[in-house]
Amino acid sequence: MSVYLQDIPLPQAQSRLLQALQAAGLAGVLGVEELPLDERAVGRVLSEPIWASISSPHYHASAMDGYAVRAMHTIEASPAVPIDLEMGTRAFYVDTGDSLPAWADAVIPIENVELINIETPPEDKPAPPRAIRIRAAVTPWSHVRPMGEDMVATQLVLPAGQVLRPVDLGAIAASGHDHVKVTRKPRVAIIPTGTELVPLGHPAKAGEIIEYNSITLAAQVTAWGARANRYPIIKDDFDLIVQCVQEAASENDLVLLNAGSSAGSEDFSARVVDKLGELLVHGVAVRPGHPVILGMIGKLPHMVPIIGVPGYPVSALLTGEIFVEPLIARWLGRPVAVPITIQARLTRKVTSPAGDDDYLRLAVGRVGDKILAAPLSRGAGVISALVRADGITILPRGTQGLPAGSEVQVQLYRQPHEIENTIFAIGSHDITIDILAQYLAAQDRRLISANVGSMGGLVALSRGESHLAGSHLLDPESGEYNLKYIREVLPKVMVKVIALVYRQQGLIVAKGNPLQIHSLEDLVREEIRYINRQNGAGTRVLLDYHLRLAGIPTSAINGYQQEEYTHLAVAAAVASGRADCGLGIAAAAQALELDFISLYQERYDLVIPQHFYESRLLEPLFNTLQDQAFRQAVLSLPGYNIDQMGKEIA
Amino acid sequence: MSVYLQDIPLPQAQSRLLQALQAAGLAGVLGVEELPLDERAVGRVLSEPIWASISSPHYHASAMDGYAVRAMHTIEASPAVPIDLEMGTRAFYVDTGDSLPAWADAVIPIENVELINIETPPEDKPAPPRAIRIRAAVTPWSHVRPMGEDMVATQLVLPAGQVLRPVDLGAIAASGHDHVKVTRKPRVAIIPTGTELVPLGHPAKAGEIIEYNSITLAAQVTAWGARANRYPIIKDDFDLIVQCVQEAASENDLVLLNAGSSAGSEDFSARVVDKLGELLVHGVAVRPGHPVILGMIGKLPHMVPIIGVPGYPVSALLTGEIFVEPLIARWLGRPVAVPITIQARLTRKVTSPAGDDDYLRLAVGRVGDKILAAPLSRGAGVISALVRADGITILPRGTQGLPAGSEVQVQLYRQPHEIENTIFAIGSHDITIDILAQYLAAQDRRLISANVGSMGGLVALSRGESHLAGSHLLDPESGEYNLKYIREVLPKVMVKVIALVYRQQGLIVAKGNPLQIHSLEDLVREEIRYINRQNGAGTRVLLDYHLRLAGIPTSAINGYQQEEYTHLAVAAAVASGRADCGLGIAAAAQALELDFISLYQERYDLVIPQHFYESRLLEPLFNTLQDQAFRQAVLSLPGYNIDQMGKEIA
Repeated sequence: MSVYLQDIPLPQAQSRLLQALQAAGLAGVLGVEELPLDERAVGRVLSEPIWASISSPHYHASAMDGYAVRAMHTIEASPAVPIDLEMGTRAFYVDTGDSLPAWADAVIPIENVELINIETPPEDKPAPPRAIRIRAAVTPWSHVRPMGEDMVATQLVLPAGQVLRPVDLGAIAASGHDHVKVTRKPRVAIIPTGTELVPLGHPAKAGEIIEYNSITLAAQVTAWGARANRYPIIKDDFDLIVQCVQEAASENDLVLLNAGSSAGSEDFSARVVDKLGELLVHGVAVRPGHPVILGMIGKLPHMVPIIGVPGYPVSALLTGEIFVEPLIARWLGRPVAVPITIQARLTRKVTSPAGDDDYLRLAVGRVGDKILAAPLSRGAGVISALVRADGITILPRGTQGLPAGSEVQVQLYRQPHEIENTIFAIGSHDITIDILAQYLAAQDRRLISANVGSMGGLVALSRGESHLAGSHLLDPESGEYNLKYIREVLPKVMVKVIALVYRQQGLIVAKGNPLQIHSLEDLVREEIRYINRQNGAGTRVLLDYHLRLAGIPTSAINGYQQEEYTHLAVAAAVASGRADCGLGIAAAAQALELDFISLYQERYDLVIPQHFYESRLLEPLFNTLQDQAFRQAVLSLPGYNIDQMGKEIA
Repeated sequence: MSVYLQDIPLPQAQSRLLQALQAAGLAGVLGVEELPLDERAVGRVLSEPIWASISSPHYHASAMDGYAVRAMHTIEASPAVPIDLEMGTRAFYVDTGDSLPAWADAVIPIENVELINIETPPEDKPAPPRAIRIRAAVTPWSHVRPMGEDMVATQLVLPAGQVLRPVDLGAIAASGHDHVKVTRKPRVAIIPTGTELVPLGHPAKAGEIIEYNSITLAAQVTAWGARANRYPIIKDDFDLIVQCVQEAASENDLVLLNAGSSAGSEDFSARVVDKLGELLVHGVAVRPGHPVILGMIGKLPHMVPIIGVPGYPVSALLTGEIFVEPLIARWLGRPVAVPITIQARLTRKVTSPAGDDDYLRLAVGRVGDKILAAPLSRGAGVISALVRADGITILPRGTQGLPAGSEVQVQLYRQPHEIENTIFAIGSHDITIDILAQYLAAQDRRLISANVGSMGGLVALSRGESHLAGSHLLDPESGEYNLKYIREVLPKVMVKVIALVYRQQGLIVAKGNPLQIHSLEDLVREEIRYINRQNGAGTRVLLDYHLRLAGIPTSAINGYQQEEYTHLAVAAAVASGRADCGLGIAAAAQALELDFISLYQERYDLVIPQHFYESRLLEPLFNTLQDQAFRQAVLSLPGYNIDQMGKEIA
């Protein structure tokens, strides 16, 4: 038995699985079921083609309200010499959709005839007259929908493998069917394992992990057309896992065993598969998510594939996309989902392990005439990067990375129009930006913010990589915000500077301020661990400015080198005990229930190139700045002042 | 009361409805419900933003299997001078994901330490050693996922209005929530009315119509996120309809009253709306589907919008797309669906009524470097055109049509890659082409066939508007098929000619051949009504050739001017009694259970320009010609011979 993780290339892993499926007779559609033809059939996959069993219409139908006639009886009619056609024998009233009498081959619309010999027409009903008078001939089959106009019996209506849409149900009904044969939904067992896991809704202590992979996997599997069966959490116990996998295999077509797929001391998945069947693959050269297990358990004729899914949420979801979706597609008899692909330009350099197919998630948006792709955090535990991801690109094996500005093919998770409605806000972070994003979402705009500090934001604008930058860069000489830096970094770009908020900056400290920190002077105390913001952040400029005023050298501050990229991250560092204090905004302190020592008030502006300022894309943003509900939401944050919100500073 | 249909422009109709909804307090989200966080939440719409209630991770977590240490204790370590850290006090074993002890701030991966003083390690488990020996210093927070790395408490995770995806459920769980507030699904009543309607599964006599609009409307409404309630068919009786609408309005948020929306004698919808509330709109200047009714029924505070949906299936579905989808989106608090739009070139001229917004359905595919859009049948009753439609374009009011070759914006019903995998087969029709389409569908190719006859197919090839043409054009001089015509029509195009089948041509006559038709000579009998194929059809060429041989003038044949475009349509004309006979293929006769008088054997070829012949697009087609299952399927048709199938004729 080999339980040692050894990565093999993805195509090789896929082909081992396929061969095993073929050997087990599991490489095609699992089964067929017949459904009544109703809305529940939408999304199901036809197991056989639909051939029309009747024609549609199945009779010669009038296409108008009017009178059915025989065309040859009308030949002599002209404006000067009208013809009267007797009701019953040579003319017959038909509503739209009515069947023509056998002798008729045309319809004259009601508005083109004169009625002869009506006595007292009943209210609201055209009375049958004695005859109709016409003043023009009609050609055969005019205003008639001949039998088979829409579909002729025996013709192909829909091919097998069609994923049924609402309109398909209509066509199937029209072609004479009242049931439909579709492929059976595969049943997929999802088994979460891990002693450290606690179920959703139970408070998790340090070292405990809320189990939610089973929910996202179940949701994926359901969205792909299968039926998900979630099993309760099993602790890391070989025998218990074996027992549960056996039970799941007897009730399902596929088993997903989540976590324990690596090679650590409590990673039992490979041994479980080995005990119950054949371990086909342990380790695939993909990133993230390489510790994947592929196996077949049971004996012919009852074998069930099993996939050991890695535990990190990003890895788990990618394993689903790479291995589970194609398998479900195969069993359902539908094509594999093909994402929409666009070309985009990387905003920054990425490195990549040469041995792996490397799946890189990206935020994607149009800025001017460029489609930009900003690489997101690559941590396998960072599910927020998945939520933010607009697409994914694959850096294939053999690639060691790509420089900034490279063009990449991005498989989109979104519709292209959403990419067009994206506002890239790169710069300093403020909680107001999150609230703005929320208000813009209701106005068909996605605000994507990347937090690189004020100076980083101006640099991004200078590169044409964003629509706006949040900035609060104090000029120590003039006491003015932003303008001097804009002149330096963006000498050739026409920009507007719009005030967003005034906000309090101060020291974020633990609840109750146990170390009694009250001013910058306290930062030099040896026992105090400071947490700093990164170079170029407005808060860092503010700190350095005031340290210089106070004559405090940065080297005297323990932790000055430790950097975080947002106010909330600074607050989180304090909340976790990793640091004792950091400069930041009041709202961040309040958010994590920390104390706040107010020191300075500063202005936070939006810096916007002129041509974006005038664009339709940003219109909803300026409307939102005037929106009372938005303003109230900002005012309800501690330490905020909106007196100048929306004011044009420059 | 006004029940007269009077078309108003679409924007005006939409704004009348919106104003009425606003007055009734129905212009926003209908309600909110709380769901447990599981796969059933996918596709639902967030009613409020998700803010992180905990950080993720919510503790400092080890990112590796290894030993938690304090970085400052490692500073002195070097390859030459290792340091031993005592287990328990200065080193602590952690699995990936474990919480760090309070005193630790870094993790050293297991492979970078030496274990000191192991006695007898239990099998398969790393035993806790007395100490670890290290030969390099580590920096603080290395191999640690600090608290909040993924999400910091209070940050925005997802905005309100988000349509939940599988990954979103993971992020919501990770941010500390186990339930989720989503908008309530609107309830939509669908009431089919019409004395001529019969329910699905009941045989329909002439003049009766199988009721399936309620199924397609229910399927649409369900796909858009609402709950559909289908009511039984009501006959055309004013009082019964009033009663049913009242009942439906008491149980639903929206009533769709199908058919009876026009102004005919049995069109009650407008009067029903007028009796129960306010008729806002009767008639909208759109094509198809102008007899739309919009109204509000009931009294404040319990008003319910009602939409009178026209009866023709194409009109009914368009009414759904134009009026129902945006209303459901509004009530769900999600953005209106925005289709993917591409630019394509019209293959033929279209005319359009100047007063209407005209919705034109199209088959769309790439041929060479052009995206082509072929207008489909515009009959409001032709649901097969909806099934075939790849997209729709709107010819706005004020446009009277567009010439062939015009560029139009097409809203796609399909994914763009499906457009790329489309094979356009324009030419003569043969049932084999339908079977081929079925086999190609399983190989990720869509074969779209337009039946314009053999000559029409060659002309389409000459214009670069198709990938291949089915053709069976007999040259009367040489007795050879197709080659002479190809030289004439495609003098500059390199083409391959591939034999598909030999097939019997003959006279399709009624069952039992009541008129005793046996040869072309019988066609001149006065009582016999012939049904012809269109000019340029190979079958027409064949007929004309043999008529000339026999010395029969075309003018002697009653019905020679009556044209159909396919073999099946000819057979349908005979089956319906519209004609007594027509020249066609045996399979078409058999399909409609007609008799067949075999006269000639002819070859049917595929004509394919050289550069498409060599393309990846067509590869599966040539494979299919060699496929035994496909060949068997063709052989099982009457009158077919596959001896030369796949043979290169030229």
